[in-house]
Amino acid sequence: MGEFGLIDLLAKMAGGGDERLLIGIGDDAAAWQGDDSIQLASVDSFIQGVHYNPAITPWQEAGWKALAVKLSDIAAMGGIPRYALVSLALPTDTEVDDVKNLYTGMLKLAKQYGVTIIGGDISNAPLVAISITILGSSPTKQILTRAAAQPGEMVAVTGRLGAAAAGLEVLSKGRKLDPEAATRLKNAFLHPTPRIAEGRLLVEQGVKTAIDISDGLIADLGQICKASQVGARIEVERVPVEPTVKTAFSERALELALSGGEDYELLFTASAEVVDKVKKAASCPVTAIGEITAGELVTLVDKQGNPFKLDRAGWEHFTNR
Amino acid sequence: MGEFGLIDLLAKMAGGGDERLLIGIGDDAAAWQGDDSIQLASVDSFIQGVHYNPAITPWQEAGWKALAVKLSDIAAMGGIPRYALVSLALPTDTEVDDVKNLYTGMLKLAKQYGVTIIGGDISNAPLVAISITILGSSPTKQILTRAAAQPGEMVAVTGRLGAAAAGLEVLSKGRKLDPEAATRLKNAFLHPTPRIAEGRLLVEQGVKTAIDISDGLIADLGQICKASQVGARIEVERVPVEPTVKTAFSERALELALSGGEDYELLFTASAEVVDKVKKAASCPVTAIGEITAGELVTLVDKQGNPFKLDRAGWEHFTNR
Repeated sequence: MGEFGLIDLLAKMAGGGDERLLIGIGDDAAAWQGDDSIQLASVDSFIQGVHYNPAITPWQEAGWKALAVKLSDIAAMGGIPRYALVSLALPTDTEVDDVKNLYTGMLKLAKQYGVTIIGGDISNAPLVAISITILGSSPTKQILTRAAAQPGEMVAVTGRLGAAAAGLEVLSKGRKLDPEAATRLKNAFLHPTPRIAEGRLLVEQGVKTAIDISDGLIADLGQICKASQVGARIEVERVPVEPTVKTAFSERALELALSGGEDYELLFTASAEVVDKVKKAASCPVTAIGEITAGELVTLVDKQGNPFKLDRAGWEHFTNR
Repeated sequence: MGEFGLIDLLAKMAGGGDERLLIGIGDDAAAWQGDDSIQLASVDSFIQGVHYNPAITPWQEAGWKALAVKLSDIAAMGGIPRYALVSLALPTDTEVDDVKNLYTGMLKLAKQYGVTIIGGDISNAPLVAISITILGSSPTKQILTRAAAQPGEMVAVTGRLGAAAAGLEVLSKGRKLDPEAATRLKNAFLHPTPRIAEGRLLVEQGVKTAIDISDGLIADLGQICKASQVGARIEVERVPVEPTVKTAFSERALELALSGGEDYELLFTASAEVVDKVKKAASCPVTAIGEITAGELVTLVDKQGNPFKLDRAGWEHFTNR
C-alpha cells in the first residue's frame, strides 16, 4: 500500500472536527489558531520489544497505551490534552489491518478525551516504533511541575497501585487467577486511564507538584525529590494497594505497588490541608502516604518507623530492560 | 550512563534562554506561554539505514539533518520555527560522545534559527531512530499549504536543484571530482539549509501554495497537485540545475535535479505577477519552471513542447528504499 496510501488511510481515520484546527494531517505541518493560555508539549516513544511485547499487547492495545502514556504526562502537568502527532516506524511486512487496529485503539482514547491527531509520519524500519507528541494547554495560569515540593508537605497519590504490574505478570507468565480478577488486572496493564480530570483538580486546589507514576512509585517520587532538591519518607503500610493485587499476589502485592510502574496514577505533594481538600473533591481515592523531608533520599519505613527494604526500586529503560 | 544521566547531559547542552518557556526538558511536558498567532507542528523520524546511512553521515551531520528536515517543513508553511522535541532511540552500545555529537549538530542549526529544544525522551532500541517534532507559528494570519494551487498559476522554485542527490552519490559511490566541487556537493547533502526567510517572503508576497523539496521536485509537485486537485506542466530545460552538478554529472544532472530530492528548496505556485515580485525581493535565485493545469497529471515537456521521459520520478520510504 505504500507510505502515501497508508497516510491517506490514517488521515481518514483520524478525521478533523476541531474548530481551531486550520490544517490537519497531510501538509508539511499541522496548523491551528493559538490562544493565550500556557501551552504544553511532550513526546515519548513506544517501541516493540522495549516498551511493549507484541505477544501480550495486541495492536489496538498498543495504540491505546502509547497515547495513554502521553495523556498521562499532560495530566501530570495539570493540563488538558488537545492535539497529538504520531510518528510510526513499521516493518515492510506489517499488515494494513494491524495499522488500522493500532489507530483504532489510539482513536478510541483520543475521542474520549477530545484529542485530535493532527499529523505524523510513517517510515519503514526493522521493528515497530510509535513516537507520539502530545500538545495541550492549561486554561489557568497554574501548572504542576516536579520541582516545587517543599519539606513538610504530604506525599499523596490518586487511585490504587500495583494493578498494571500485576496485569503484566498475568499476561506474560500466564499466572492462574479467578477470571474476573485476571481480566481486571490485564485491563489495568493494557488500558491505563490518564488522570486528566484529577490533574486539573490538583491545580484548582492549589497543588504545585506532581508526576505520573510510569516507572514506579519510588522511582517517580525520586524524580520529584531530585527536581525539588528534597527528600521523602514513605510509610509503606499507607500505600494504597489495589485489592485484587493483594488477594492474588499476597506477600508480593506491596512490591508491585511500590515499584511496579505503569499505573499512571498521579503522585503529588501538598500541605495536609490541601491534600484534604483534594480528597473531598476527587471522585477517585486519594491517599496520603508520607511526607517531604529536608534530606535528599527517599526512605521507606514500616508502621513502627523502622526502615523497610525493597529489592527493586524501579527501572530505567536504557539500562535495565 | 543510563537514560536519566543521558537526559541530564542533553538538557544541559540544550540549555534554555527562551523568555516564553516556562518548563523545558525534564518535567512531564514542556510548557510555554501561548500567543494569538497560528501555531504549527510537524514530526518526522530519521532512522539509521532508512533515512540515513551512518557510514556516510557522521553523528553531527545526522543531528543537523534530522532537525533541518523539520525546519524545512515549517519554512514550507511560511512559518517561523520556535521549539523542538527530540525522541531518541539508541542501541545500548552507543557512545556518549556520539550522542553529544548528534546534539551538537542539532544545536548548531537550532541556534542559527532561534529554535529551543524543549523536551524529548530516550529509549533503548536495536538501531538509531531520531524523531523530531517541530513547533512554530506564523506571525501573520496567512500560511502556505499544499492545497491552494489554481490552474493558470506558475510553478516556481527557490535556489538550484540536484546538489544534495549528487552529494549523496559522491559520498556513497566515492565518485572522483575536483575537491572543491566534491566538498560543495557533500555539504549540500549533509548540511541542507532550511528556507525559513524565503518561506516568510512567499507569505508576505501573497503566495498561498508551497511544499519543500524532500522527495524530489516531481514527487513533491505531485503532492501539491493531489492536494489541490490540479495538474502541472514542467518545462524541464527551465529547471535550475546546480552548476556544479551540471559540470560533474553532465547528462545525469537533470535527472538528479528533477527526482534526486533532499534539496529542501521551496516549490511554490502563484500568478506570474507574484512570482515576479518574489524574484525581486528574494536573496536567492527564484525560477519559474512551468504552470499549473486543470488536469490531474504532472507532465514534463522539453523546449519544443514534446513529452520528456524520466525513469525515476521520486520515491516513497515505505516501498522503494
